[in-house]
Amino acid sequence: MKVPHRLYLTEDQMPKQWYNVRADMKEQHDPIINPATMKPAQESDLYPVFCKKLAHQEMDCETRYVDIPEEVQEMYKIYRPSPLIRAYNLEKALDTPAKIYYKFEGNNTSGSHKLNSAIAQVYYAKEQGLKALTTETGAGQWGTAMAEACSYFHMPLTVFMVKVSYQQKPYRKAVMQTFGADVIPSPSTETQIGRAILEANPGTGGSLGCAISEAVERAVTTEGTRYVLGSVLNQVLLHQSVIGLESKIAMELLDEYPDIVIGCAGGGSNLGGLISPFMQDKLTGKANPYFIAVEPASCPSLTRGRYAYDFCDTGKVTPLAKMYTLGSGFMPSSNHAGGLRYHGMSPILSKLYHDGYIDEARSVEQTKVFEAATFFAKQETILPAPESAHAIRAAIDEAIKCRESGEKKTILFGLTGTGYFDMTAYTSYIEGTMNDYIPTDEDLQKGFDALPVIPGIQE
Amino acid sequence: MKVPHRLYLTEDQMPKQWYNVRADMKEQHDPIINPATMKPAQESDLYPVFCKKLAHQEMDCETRYVDIPEEVQEMYKIYRPSPLIRAYNLEKALDTPAKIYYKFEGNNTSGSHKLNSAIAQVYYAKEQGLKALTTETGAGQWGTAMAEACSYFHMPLTVFMVKVSYQQKPYRKAVMQTFGADVIPSPSTETQIGRAILEANPGTGGSLGCAISEAVERAVTTEGTRYVLGSVLNQVLLHQSVIGLESKIAMELLDEYPDIVIGCAGGGSNLGGLISPFMQDKLTGKANPYFIAVEPASCPSLTRGRYAYDFCDTGKVTPLAKMYTLGSGFMPSSNHAGGLRYHGMSPILSKLYHDGYIDEARSVEQTKVFEAATFFAKQETILPAPESAHAIRAAIDEAIKCRESGEKKTILFGLTGTGYFDMTAYTSYIEGTMNDYIPTDEDLQKGFDALPVIPGIQE
Repeated sequence: MKVPHRLYLTEDQMPKQWYNVRADMKEQHDPIINPATMKPAQESDLYPVFCKKLAHQEMDCETRYVDIPEEVQEMYKIYRPSPLIRAYNLEKALDTPAKIYYKFEGNNTSGSHKLNSAIAQVYYAKEQGLKALTTETGAGQWGTAMAEACSYFHMPLTVFMVKVSYQQKPYRKAVMQTFGADVIPSPSTETQIGRAILEANPGTGGSLGCAISEAVERAVTTEGTRYVLGSVLNQVLLHQSVIGLESKIAMELLDEYPDIVIGCAGGGSNLGGLISPFMQDKLTGKANPYFIAVEPASCPSLTRGRYAYDFCDTGKVTPLAKMYTLGSGFMPSSNHAGGLRYHGMSPILSKLYHDGYIDEARSVEQTKVFEAATFFAKQETILPAPESAHAIRAAIDEAIKCRESGEKKTILFGLTGTGYFDMTAYTSYIEGTMNDYIPTDEDLQKGFDALPVIPGIQE
Repeated sequence: MKVPHRLYLTEDQMPKQWYNVRADMKEQHDPIINPATMKPAQESDLYPVFCKKLAHQEMDCETRYVDIPEEVQEMYKIYRPSPLIRAYNLEKALDTPAKIYYKFEGNNTSGSHKLNSAIAQVYYAKEQGLKALTTETGAGQWGTAMAEACSYFHMPLTVFMVKVSYQQKPYRKAVMQTFGADVIPSPSTETQIGRAILEANPGTGGSLGCAISEAVERAVTTEGTRYVLGSVLNQVLLHQSVIGLESKIAMELLDEYPDIVIGCAGGGSNLGGLISPFMQDKLTGKANPYFIAVEPASCPSLTRGRYAYDFCDTGKVTPLAKMYTLGSGFMPSSNHAGGLRYHGMSPILSKLYHDGYIDEARSVEQTKVFEAATFFAKQETILPAPESAHAIRAAIDEAIKCRESGEKKTILFGLTGTGYFDMTAYTSYIEGTMNDYIPTDEDLQKGFDALPVIPGIQE
């Protein structure tokens, strides 16, 4: 059949259930550890931080398909389905025999796939009768997604925004405020942790780790309030499976199946969501797609990190997870543009990579990323987010390999979002002032030396 | 049938021809006047400025349907069809029995409907073998659309960007540069007109009129170069008819027909494109939808302008057109946010309004516009451009009337674009510092007094 440029599912074709990849994994990731007891955490240990249904989803390795609540489906329908796009122009420009598809998640006001999980998290909090939510945001995509979802469900939201982003990205802040969110630059004087940090470092621009700590403190010390997080967590991968499920249905309609599936990887929300339904085929022996995770050379958790237990935040207040990590104190260079700055990686994806189900992790330097982003924009007329452009880089490289080998592979990658708020980075690329930064082995060793000791588990 | 939230046509259902509303008008607008002769212009008079096919489209009142070239259709397919969206949430929030639909043209990187005409104009220039194009941009939507289209067709582009926008909207500039456009702040030292203006006013921030004059001068003094314009022109309304054609096909699929069609109106590109196919029904007696044009109270060409011959630019180098105008020297107050700043109105739409086919023109103050924009964003999760929010304001007001009267009207409006680059205005609205400005009768009289004299036609 003639493949259209853009395939949108109809509402009837949209998934009614999320897919939980853990149900098909032969081995689960090691249990998360409660930092108070240094023993494996129970579901109820998570209740002070997450609402109950989400705590359950976090721990549930058995339920293969989880019904998407009607109310969540209703909000999905406002901006979904997202298109599966055949990159005819990119193929032509690369003169490749490969077929390139991408799932574009940027066609909503939050500008990324983050909305898929924000909606679910806000819905469950509302259902439990909670009164307010807190979260943190760095680059701003997650905060914007949360602001939209909270506005829709009439849930008050406080966003602790890394102070330097708050100052440098006033537009992002303004979008969140337009949707009614209370946006506070972090570190702030509104939390104990914030005040302590400000006293020690009055001029600090803040960090994601600090903002997480403030958001968690506000949640656990305020009645009826919980904290939400946009990546890394198992629940987030569950919600984001909608990306892969839609992609798979669309490809089936086109009688296609990917030989290679490529996703950018920071905390893993997009990569996990995109690959999960295809990973099911691999885990169950139905098919054998080749999975590539692409991360920044400046924050190389999969390619150069340790597979070890670590805290999920810099402030060391969250549970510990077994994952590929650079150490919870790791901070990517300040000249790294965009997201994908997280020190660790989703425990599920870490396990799948460790066990060889994710075939390859690849790190790329940011000038190469922006080269791909600019080339892609000119062919496909979509201005990609820097995060998404990591996947574009790998897709282009794989398509070029096909040109050289003559192989007609089918490539699928995730285009997670748009780059409207990243033009400062684009400008530095265009003007030739963008630098690459790769941490030295010594830099990384400091992070590994600071990994936590867990008696009997990690000495 | 159950109406989905978003209806996307398939590629097969997309229009293959544009619709030229002039072919169904009983009377045409008065002819444009060549400023050199002060006589009605011939098609060939336009050749120095526009490429030949576009000059022909500008003058052609007879061809009812114009084939969309294959190459243009191919690029349309990269971002079209745009969705027809049923505003279920907005309806619910307004508690109205009205059904509200909107055609959303913001889901492409240029962020607006402008791309529909940019592609056509660049294609015809390429086909004629031209070597380069020039244009101007103010808020930046048209310049971005042109940068994308020129990148696609490998056509060099120079954009004269109003200097104050160039300085205040570096992101817009950066997007155009990412697509390879040469962006020059206007007034510049690169044209005679620019140098003259700079000599007289060294500190000026420029104006759209000045930028047009520079772009036209560059085009007519450079071999193989032509000028393109994103609104007002008849050719632009022809290309933008794709908006209305898609809307009409989608509504037919839903067994719907609009009682009211609402569009924001600056130069008329969106309004004309949206209403044309429905206007055909009115002109031919098949149906009688009620058309509302919505414009800013600060730039009220239809509601308070004169129906008279005027220059299309401030520099008085372009042909004269009979249209509703505030005078070619009119400048909206600097506190007016966003586009819709043009002193005149499309000659076709002016004629249709003058003859009563456009039923109503309505002007709205910008605080009311941003109130509607913010309310809409919270319900529908799309952050609208300020321009588009003029139509939202009217759609909300009509839906509220339906609530009061109990009438179940079907409302269709055009959501032309997104507001990512307009957050400064949103912030001033949220912070309560946004002001309204309505020109006094005396202000307007100055513009009317300066209308040109055309012997035997306009004394």
